[in-house]
Amino acid sequence: MTDVNTEIHGELITVGDELLSGRTVNNNAAHLGHHLRLAGFQLRWVTVVGDREEDITAALVRAMERAGFVLVTGGLGPTEDDRTNIAAARALGRPLRRDPTSWDVITTHLQKHEIPMTSGIAKMADIPAGANRIDLVRPRAGYHINDADKPLFFLPGVPGEMADMLQDFVLPTLKKQFPEQVSIRSHLLRVFGLRESEIANRLADLEKEFQNVSFGYFPHFPENHLNLTVQASTATAADAILEEVAAAVIRRLGQNVYGQGDDALEMVVGRLLLEEGLTLAVAESCTGGLLAHLITNVPGSSAYFDRCLVAYSDDAKINHLLVPPDLVSQHGVVSAQVAEAMARGLQEKRQVSIALAITGFAGPAGGTPAQPVGTVFLALICDKGLRIEKFQFGGKRRKIKLAASYTALDWLRRAVIDESFFDAG
Amino acid sequence: MTDVNTEIHGELITVGDELLSGRTVNNNAAHLGHHLRLAGFQLRWVTVVGDREEDITAALVRAMERAGFVLVTGGLGPTEDDRTNIAAARALGRPLRRDPTSWDVITTHLQKHEIPMTSGIAKMADIPAGANRIDLVRPRAGYHINDADKPLFFLPGVPGEMADMLQDFVLPTLKKQFPEQVSIRSHLLRVFGLRESEIANRLADLEKEFQNVSFGYFPHFPENHLNLTVQASTATAADAILEEVAAAVIRRLGQNVYGQGDDALEMVVGRLLLEEGLTLAVAESCTGGLLAHLITNVPGSSAYFDRCLVAYSDDAKINHLLVPPDLVSQHGVVSAQVAEAMARGLQEKRQVSIALAITGFAGPAGGTPAQPVGTVFLALICDKGLRIEKFQFGGKRRKIKLAASYTALDWLRRAVIDESFFDAG
Repeated sequence: MTDVNTEIHGELITVGDELLSGRTVNNNAAHLGHHLRLAGFQLRWVTVVGDREEDITAALVRAMERAGFVLVTGGLGPTEDDRTNIAAARALGRPLRRDPTSWDVITTHLQKHEIPMTSGIAKMADIPAGANRIDLVRPRAGYHINDADKPLFFLPGVPGEMADMLQDFVLPTLKKQFPEQVSIRSHLLRVFGLRESEIANRLADLEKEFQNVSFGYFPHFPENHLNLTVQASTATAADAILEEVAAAVIRRLGQNVYGQGDDALEMVVGRLLLEEGLTLAVAESCTGGLLAHLITNVPGSSAYFDRCLVAYSDDAKINHLLVPPDLVSQHGVVSAQVAEAMARGLQEKRQVSIALAITGFAGPAGGTPAQPVGTVFLALICDKGLRIEKFQFGGKRRKIKLAASYTALDWLRRAVIDESFFDAG
Repeated sequence: MTDVNTEIHGELITVGDELLSGRTVNNNAAHLGHHLRLAGFQLRWVTVVGDREEDITAALVRAMERAGFVLVTGGLGPTEDDRTNIAAARALGRPLRRDPTSWDVITTHLQKHEIPMTSGIAKMADIPAGANRIDLVRPRAGYHINDADKPLFFLPGVPGEMADMLQDFVLPTLKKQFPEQVSIRSHLLRVFGLRESEIANRLADLEKEFQNVSFGYFPHFPENHLNLTVQASTATAADAILEEVAAAVIRRLGQNVYGQGDDALEMVVGRLLLEEGLTLAVAESCTGGLLAHLITNVPGSSAYFDRCLVAYSDDAKINHLLVPPDLVSQHGVVSAQVAEAMARGLQEKRQVSIALAITGFAGPAGGTPAQPVGTVFLALICDKGLRIEKFQFGGKRRKIKLAASYTALDWLRRAVIDESFFDAG
């Protein structure tokens, strides 16, 4: 839960021809807007310009006039079309200077990796006079200037580098410079297994009851996120309301609320398995490794994740997972019987606490009239019982992979926490 | 390769608090930029403002000063925070008028669906004097004004409605108003295995030689994309130059150029395997299923992809992949010996043309001083030979997974096309 400072209006300038031509979606702007807001700051303007120096300069001049703080992303790299440094120098009326810290970081990096210096790389160290480099260790472009007490942050366009600098430097610096005044607090609830309209429907009377709380719905396929925002005279007052509303929402949505804040579903699952001392093996067919990829995105997942077999061919299912060949010929590879046999085969290979198998048609080929593309069977087996279920997911290949993999993650969560999970099987 | 009208610079204003707070990613801007460009027009500025009337007005005034055509999306709906009509009237110095066509379309729709008229819905028919409604049948907000011969298009923020009006009305209207004058054509080359600075360095003299070609560099970790853009008096002349430059670039970068246009690396690999009639099995450790996920994102991959084992535990490597236990105890799981044994174990399980194995430390735990986090071994075996190599990738868990998986994809490509691939092993 965080405060938003309503007095200070920021401007973001994102630089790059690829943003104007639509080659790249401006995810950086969404990321920055979202995290600034979570930290208590708001953007009032976002300006996108291409690689033309004059346009970057003009955008900067305008932003310095109207905004309380300014962020710029992109155009800091080594190539000819990276013009942000020159434009910044011009807009601020400061000369470009070779920054000794930047030069040190860059040359150290080049020497270590035996990369030759080029004029392009060298110009990355030429930043406006008075600017302070942000990353003092890694060769990541980015600097900070206080110009007439107005903070300007120049960040890389590379999303990961930008996001790191935002958290490690920009937000702490802004918080120091602009102490909070009005209290807006917000809290995110993460929901799986309910449509946005269904959630809105179940919460309709709460929205009426709590007029001073804003209910923001964010579809994150295949999940839905709900952001609750409250404004009050003090943070304590806002938090009290927020806590009450969040509890009421969770009562309405039950175990469909799987997590809060930054908790991804695979993280929640990992924590549960770790707490209960359970181990896990999975067999994937149509999801093609996506489930294992999600599970292993969690640091420390090797403590509970044993293995995954992506059994794309029938032979993999039969010889690797011990699925009887006549089961395949009798019921087809996409069937409850084969899903169950895959899960049992996993367990015979190795004693794990939970074995989960997925088989289905991700398309575009492979479906039948009776079992069209999007038909997926899940089977989960553990000492509490066995559950098998048929799903019909919509959309194309990638969407079906996502829907099936997240449903499997949700099954793992429910198999641990939901007493009635195996009754529904 | 497409034509772009370089004389006319457009501005897009996207309206909505949700774009500033990052609740919504600005996909509309990418869609408009892309389709305008395909149709021969280019955006030079994109401005994002929230729902404040004064900010929409100011953005419009500025756009009318500097741009040759202006598009606005959002803020045309029935709620209190939809203020674009009022702002437009103010910016253009025209009164708001109740548009008879809009009123007819709206009232007909409401009657048909038995929805009561509200003051919010009514104000959707109040548009600036002289504006022409775009959709004459459906209740979709949107209008067009020619102000001092400069076209302005006000479009809904709803993506589907916006996209329809763009195709059906905006693009034809722009084409009529601005016949093409200059031809710009562009072409994308996709590069793996070279740093952006290295690419720029190798192409520096080409950039100087072809002054009328713009070289746009786009890092897409772990790849780099290069967009070549040429301006000429005719499309044929531009294409001729483009072909020459692309060929010269490919000569410089060699097999590091893995594809062109929309060809993702996993698609190129899939096509090669299919053409050569090869089959593939992989064993992943630190990449945790990401490689299999990428491979199976390609429709039709089941024709060549046999299976993947994500061997996260030692037991999975030993009992599933037949890696001798003393190899693990002697050399550690992250070693050339184990990588090779994993690949050989895969082949023993099933006769596939190519077996590829990955073992490494994705972190944050697991590394040693001699083999820090990011140490990854790849082993690839096929009838042409065996190659094993140690890599040291930078960054955190997800970045290491990405770098290792794409390197593995590139190995698959090179194993097929590069005669000297196995010599380097």
